[in-house]
Amino acid sequence: MLWGGRFTQGLDPLMVQYNESLPYDRIFWSQDIAGSIAFARANAKSGILTAHEFSEIERGFRQIAEEWRTNTFVVKPNDEDIHTANERRLGEIIGKEIGGKLHTGRSRNEQIATDMRLWLRDELRKIDGFLSDLIKVSIARAERDIDYLMPGYTHLQKAQPVRWSHWVLSHATAFASELQRLRETIKRVNRSPLGTGALAGNPFHIDREQMARELGFDGLLYNSMNAVADRDFAMETMQWGSSFMLKISRWAEDLIIYSSLEFGFVRLSDAYSTGSSLMPQKKNADSLELLRGKSGRAFGQMAGLMCTIKGLPTTYNKDLQESVEPLLDHIKTVSDSIQIATGVLSTLTVIPEKMVAALAPEMLATEFADYLVRKGVPFREGHHISGRVVALAEQHNVPMDKLSLEQLKGVDARFDDDVLECLDYERAVELKDAIGGCSKRAVLEQVAVLKSLL
Amino acid sequence: MLWGGRFTQGLDPLMVQYNESLPYDRIFWSQDIAGSIAFARANAKSGILTAHEFSEIERGFRQIAEEWRTNTFVVKPNDEDIHTANERRLGEIIGKEIGGKLHTGRSRNEQIATDMRLWLRDELRKIDGFLSDLIKVSIARAERDIDYLMPGYTHLQKAQPVRWSHWVLSHATAFASELQRLRETIKRVNRSPLGTGALAGNPFHIDREQMARELGFDGLLYNSMNAVADRDFAMETMQWGSSFMLKISRWAEDLIIYSSLEFGFVRLSDAYSTGSSLMPQKKNADSLELLRGKSGRAFGQMAGLMCTIKGLPTTYNKDLQESVEPLLDHIKTVSDSIQIATGVLSTLTVIPEKMVAALAPEMLATEFADYLVRKGVPFREGHHISGRVVALAEQHNVPMDKLSLEQLKGVDARFDDDVLECLDYERAVELKDAIGGCSKRAVLEQVAVLKSLL
Amino acid sequence: MLWGGRFTQGLDPLMVQYNESLPYDRIFWSQDIAGSIAFARANAKSGILTAHEFSEIERGFRQIAEEWRTNTFVVKPNDEDIHTANERRLGEIIGKEIGGKLHTGRSRNEQIATDMRLWLRDELRKIDGFLSDLIKVSIARAERDIDYLMPGYTHLQKAQPVRWSHWVLSHATAFASELQRLRETIKRVNRSPLGTGALAGNPFHIDREQMARELGFDGLLYNSMNAVADRDFAMETMQWGSSFMLKISRWAEDLIIYSSLEFGFVRLSDAYSTGSSLMPQKKNADSLELLRGKSGRAFGQMAGLMCTIKGLPTTYNKDLQESVEPLLDHIKTVSDSIQIATGVLSTLTVIPEKMVAALAPEMLATEFADYLVRKGVPFREGHHISGRVVALAEQHNVPMDKLSLEQLKGVDARFDDDVLECLDYERAVELKDAIGGCSKRAVLEQVAVLKSLL
Amino acid sequence: MLWGGRFTQGLDPLMVQYNESLPYDRIFWSQDIAGSIAFARANAKSGILTAHEFSEIERGFRQIAEEWRTNTFVVKPNDEDIHTANERRLGEIIGKEIGGKLHTGRSRNEQIATDMRLWLRDELRKIDGFLSDLIKVSIARAERDIDYLMPGYTHLQKAQPVRWSHWVLSHATAFASELQRLRETIKRVNRSPLGTGALAGNPFHIDREQMARELGFDGLLYNSMNAVADRDFAMETMQWGSSFMLKISRWAEDLIIYSSLEFGFVRLSDAYSTGSSLMPQKKNADSLELLRGKSGRAFGQMAGLMCTIKGLPTTYNKDLQESVEPLLDHIKTVSDSIQIATGVLSTLTVIPEKMVAALAPEMLATEFADYLVRKGVPFREGHHISGRVVALAEQHNVPMDKLSLEQLKGVDARFDDDVLECLDYERAVELKDAIGGCSKRAVLEQVAVLKSLL
Repeated sequence: MLWGGRFTQGLDPLMVQYNESLPYDRIFWSQDIAGSIAFARANAKSGILTAHEFSEIERGFRQIAEEWRTNTFVVKPNDEDIHTANERRLGEIIGKEIGGKLHTGRSRNEQIATDMRLWLRDELRKIDGFLSDLIKVSIARAERDIDYLMPGYTHLQKAQPVRWSHWVLSHATAFASELQRLRETIKRVNRSPLGTGALAGNPFHIDREQMARELGFDGLLYNSMNAVADRDFAMETMQWGSSFMLKISRWAEDLIIYSSLEFGFVRLSDAYSTGSSLMPQKKNADSLELLRGKSGRAFGQMAGLMCTIKGLPTTYNKDLQESVEPLLDHIKTVSDSIQIATGVLSTLTVIPEKMVAALAPEMLATEFADYLVRKGVPFREGHHISGRVVALAEQHNVPMDKLSLEQLKGVDARFDDDVLECLDYERAVELKDAIGGCSKRAVLEQVAVLKSLL
Repeated sequence: MLWGGRFTQGLDPLMVQYNESLPYDRIFWSQDIAGSIAFARANAKSGILTAHEFSEIERGFRQIAEEWRTNTFVVKPNDEDIHTANERRLGEIIGKEIGGKLHTGRSRNEQIATDMRLWLRDELRKIDGFLSDLIKVSIARAERDIDYLMPGYTHLQKAQPVRWSHWVLSHATAFASELQRLRETIKRVNRSPLGTGALAGNPFHIDREQMARELGFDGLLYNSMNAVADRDFAMETMQWGSSFMLKISRWAEDLIIYSSLEFGFVRLSDAYSTGSSLMPQKKNADSLELLRGKSGRAFGQMAGLMCTIKGLPTTYNKDLQESVEPLLDHIKTVSDSIQIATGVLSTLTVIPEKMVAALAPEMLATEFADYLVRKGVPFREGHHISGRVVALAEQHNVPMDKLSLEQLKGVDARFDDDVLECLDYERAVELKDAIGGCSKRAVLEQVAVLKSLL
Repeated sequence: MLWGGRFTQGLDPLMVQYNESLPYDRIFWSQDIAGSIAFARANAKSGILTAHEFSEIERGFRQIAEEWRTNTFVVKPNDEDIHTANERRLGEIIGKEIGGKLHTGRSRNEQIATDMRLWLRDELRKIDGFLSDLIKVSIARAERDIDYLMPGYTHLQKAQPVRWSHWVLSHATAFASELQRLRETIKRVNRSPLGTGALAGNPFHIDREQMARELGFDGLLYNSMNAVADRDFAMETMQWGSSFMLKISRWAEDLIIYSSLEFGFVRLSDAYSTGSSLMPQKKNADSLELLRGKSGRAFGQMAGLMCTIKGLPTTYNKDLQESVEPLLDHIKTVSDSIQIATGVLSTLTVIPEKMVAALAPEMLATEFADYLVRKGVPFREGHHISGRVVALAEQHNVPMDKLSLEQLKGVDARFDDDVLECLDYERAVELKDAIGGCSKRAVLEQVAVLKSLL
Repeated sequence: MLWGGRFTQGLDPLMVQYNESLPYDRIFWSQDIAGSIAFARANAKSGILTAHEFSEIERGFRQIAEEWRTNTFVVKPNDEDIHTANERRLGEIIGKEIGGKLHTGRSRNEQIATDMRLWLRDELRKIDGFLSDLIKVSIARAERDIDYLMPGYTHLQKAQPVRWSHWVLSHATAFASELQRLRETIKRVNRSPLGTGALAGNPFHIDREQMARELGFDGLLYNSMNAVADRDFAMETMQWGSSFMLKISRWAEDLIIYSSLEFGFVRLSDAYSTGSSLMPQKKNADSLELLRGKSGRAFGQMAGLMCTIKGLPTTYNKDLQESVEPLLDHIKTVSDSIQIATGVLSTLTVIPEKMVAALAPEMLATEFADYLVRKGVPFREGHHISGRVVALAEQHNVPMDKLSLEQLKGVDARFDDDVLECLDYERAVELKDAIGGCSKRAVLEQVAVLKSLL
């Protein structure tokens, strides 16, 4: 050996640790057992195992499952992954003669893919539930708070008045779109690789469809080389997860800004805020900042897996082991984040008087233009006239609603007495009544649409 | 001004260039015009425009379209984007009195979102066609080349013999999964933001559903704040595109390796190879390397947009302009790449004799284990015995198929005369007959499944 | 051919376009020519070329340079890249007999690496200048505006008063760190691959050091296989660029928030703002939003190249062509962005009275704790007492500075008459006088440090 | 509360877990203690603490350190981070009266930044050592194996013969460049934020330079707002780490290909390979695949943090907590990977006879061209003639070295008897003798350069 180094005798303890996956893939213990039982049952059906052998295998796995459940499973030094650990233990319980028949025609390549897909399917279904809750809370808030008006922003500049509920639903609509996409993703995740061998297929006429049914898969993966090499179910999940987290990051950004003292539209409940070790007066929106920050984490996990997969040659390569840990953390991150967001929104105090106080007459400038449009003035001209009203107010250093009717008429003779109606925020909001607008009717219509999607 | 710098008079020419989008968003000219006509028609229906005004607007836009089509449209200095350019020109053609009415109740925010979605929908439908072609070529190859055997690899090490067609279909299966996902993405892209204003909605009772029908949208976006702020249709498209390109990168990696002189399984047609400026003997698989390399480019565009979107506050911010250029290049990259891949595959020369020569008897070791399994030996024991056969061959420095029957029986007495059948590659392949395997029947079954998905 | 497709005769026009780089690598024309002249001069020195041949080659390239400069260079169909184009044209001017000797012992692999490094070095030196300007403008602002106080924020919540100049320098300090890193990067970029051949080295005793000196390189790349395969100079540049752009994104985010009407601390000059097509009153900070958005674009280019490079086998692969276009756009993006940022900062209007108005007495709560610390009270107890002062003010619904001395003493007897000094923002700021603090002295010290780094 | 949900009484246990960092930031226990002692010492110097108080604090922390070291530190429910845990425990040991004085003028913002920088500096110095080892092993191999010739590849196609040592050094050169960059990064990491408070600075005249010296920092961060907000030291570290890992990914890719049976140039030691659960004959290069795969993981961590940082407003935001966990895993990943790579390389078996067998006469085609160049033929013409030689060999279906002298002369009359010397691989290699080439001299020169860099 060139390097009289750290290790001798052909054994590098760091390599053992670098290679082993049991510290994290143990989370799949129940999926691994369910998959093995299904596999054994199918092999019994096709005559590879006797009924007795199958029943022994099933008995052994029931005990192993109990050991995992009660946290009494003892890991041994050579248990490099969950498959090895479970099969080793099976041999101890039912003997190697029968235990040694379990893996007939099977490969760890198909096994880990099966375990991951089963586990992920179940987790994504839980996330479906959490996300539905977040949308429901959004709907509930939108219904309850429907009378609150607030400034709508573009470019973080006051633009036009809208309903607070409209803001709530703008995000809920985005979440609902993610819910739809999640359900499509689950369908692709929930397909069975079991019975495809190491890469070439199973040589013992195993009934893959029976196994898939037993395990609750929606269908089969139809090419064995693809079935063992594919981690796109993990990648697509993380693409979904990071897409969802980006939406949460925008929602959180809004609420962080709205909860600044300068805006002051909302106040977080104490459960989702923290103080400062130095400044006694501080109340920080830590929950929202973590949500925003973790969107980067979720993105990084997706980006990392994509980089890992890029350019890999055909079928299984050990690189694919790197799909597991990021996926586990990703799912936890997304799952926790949705629940935290739901908690934040459901306990949020809204301060409608601060919202109203933040409405500025200038936000109604477009109403003047629209007023003129209704009198037949081309919009471009109306927009120009309305701009002159804004300029006049600035010139006199008064809010636009303090201009007199005479001053307005001075800007354009077509301004009539009824022009002052333009200065009503509620009216401005109610006029936005086309589908998707912020009038009460249009907002409640959105609520109905969202409910129908859940 | 603190910095007596580059510019004076409040005008920074670099800022003008930094801000303008016409150099690239001009690609949307026809979508922008179609959207404006639909918008005007709807405003005519609700009485904002007279029939005459609408017909003038339509006439003007027909002429503008003709100018774009014939490359005679003259861009003027203040035409910062396609919307401004088209509307400016409309005013020149039909006069400002009527032209100035076009934008009534409309915002560039909804306009650019409409343009992008229309354009993208059409491009994605073209890509659907290209991708279908790639799958069809794969199917055709798989059918034609079905008799060729080759080594199947895991970890780039010879594992088990498979059919070349099985390899072809392993990728085609992955492509088909992307095709399904593409079609789901198109549905989300093809929804209409038109009629949602700058953020608050449209105040003139515009019929959004009529406009959506006219423009071929599948449905509406139901919240105006969401409709103008959302670039998830672009992000999801690029997530799809980069996911697809990763698949292509693996396919290309395989073919690059297979076309190395050491493997020599395939030879690229001259149309997709190039030579060297220094080394006369070289023939390089440039097309495949570009496909692999561009998977990084496509990924980067997706990653960049995600980073841009992260943490943006509510509704439109100018940051979103950064969604356009990467999307345009992304679509071109993906679209070209699929067609190049199709060209490569359809003109590829397969060299079956090199494939067969690369089959090694050691790849049949599992057959010995399976042989013993069929005699009732537990697989683990069979695997162990078979390993000893491999070791024996190594020890005698001969290929495994040069061991005598006696030597085999010496390893384990249960090896009978028929054990030599294990040394038949074709037999090994045909035994993998469960669904998804590489037997001829199983491969043709995959072909049927794929055809049904197109 | 399996696919009776788009092209015939072994020529796929799409492949030609997919492969060619001249549309973008023409930007390297002058570097390509300088490299060729240096290469020919060195070959003349070692006897490969005669003096006459060299002088002809030089003459030819002078003419070609003039053609590029005057935009009269005519591209021909087979000019797939800048090297091919220049050499083809050389042959036309000086004849193929001599022109055909130029490429002796040279490869396009070393040529493109040379061109890219030369071009990039020059661009990065320009960026060094732009970045220095941005820091100088920051320093100038910090000095001029030193008397303005503003709220300092953590978690976007008012924390402690600071000087506006301190905020300006907090970013300038970060920029200065990037400037240092940029200069280290330039050193690694500016090393010569010329004279390393396709991969194995140059067989004609070429004097690589002479060529490097002529081209202004800082040193040689010392392994030919590495020299032609390495794109880390491009990757490191983009890592630098995207790191810098992230800093700009934070600077822009601050200014976007500060220029919202709710904060109102700064106003952008018209040169860097735009209006709305729908809302006449709007003034949007488009420049800052583009800066923030383009940080995503720059990140994506870096991420994309890293993904492209990942897992590539040894020496040149065509994948590396994908390093060029993203790099060109990256440099333009970073370069433009720095200049825009400089323009924004130098023309920014600061509104100190809005800053002062935003200072809130609660931001002085820590001063009460520090007051008690100076009287020997443990900080933790002081922090607690000070928290009770905040609570008392909230309870009485008054700002903290409206509490009477008696009320304060009621909270803790150790509050003496001089406690009211704590309510002076200027005093609070001046107390932060340790190195790096926001006292006037400490801020001017930072200015001096920054100046010394330029 | 709107949502009668999971939690009541204002306490969400999930939020507690979502927020707490102790499970991972406990790794900083010794840095946190060292920082606190330095801080207390400086406060003692400036009179904030008495000598007795300081000595009590030091005593307390010595005990706490011992508890961590012996794994007897007991975490309590409110210990949300390492700072809180350590300070809570200090109060228990030395009493709250003195313990409560520790945090005077200090903030957790500066504390965590100090802890991270101290820890990271030490880890990066360890990595410097590991990386130097990898380069040393590369040098040792290059020296020992200097006589082995192998095919050099471009585009994974046989290009020109090179020395195996040249290949080894091509990667070592890249590693050395990373070593240089690492050392620059360490300098930026190792700067002190201690004494900058929450954001505004320290109000008690703390001697920051004394603290920095005590803690071994190279210098100060000069702006308090920057000092607490900056995570660029983490980002730059991960940019470095992911850049390094990309280099490892290319090195691993080469070795994976070289260890395939088709190439067969190298054989991994058993310590770094594994077998198959299904196929007894398999020996997989798991270590190399993990190295390649983990380059994606490292990239993802960097990409994630960059996305997290993007667009954050000024100073500390809780988002920055997301910089810790990825950094810890990143450092472990990079550190382990370097050591694994060193182990792989130092125990690798090289099979020179397979390398030689893979040399093909066509790789000498350029030698014919160079031969003609030496006779005065323009290279382009020589390249063309040499191409005709290759074609002639293909036409006769023989290797190029089986062409007769007559046949060669038939291609071009200038081929003389000495042309057959061109068919000597060793000669071809030795001719590449310019700096950076693959001649023995040039390779040993590289060795010398590398040694001088260590």
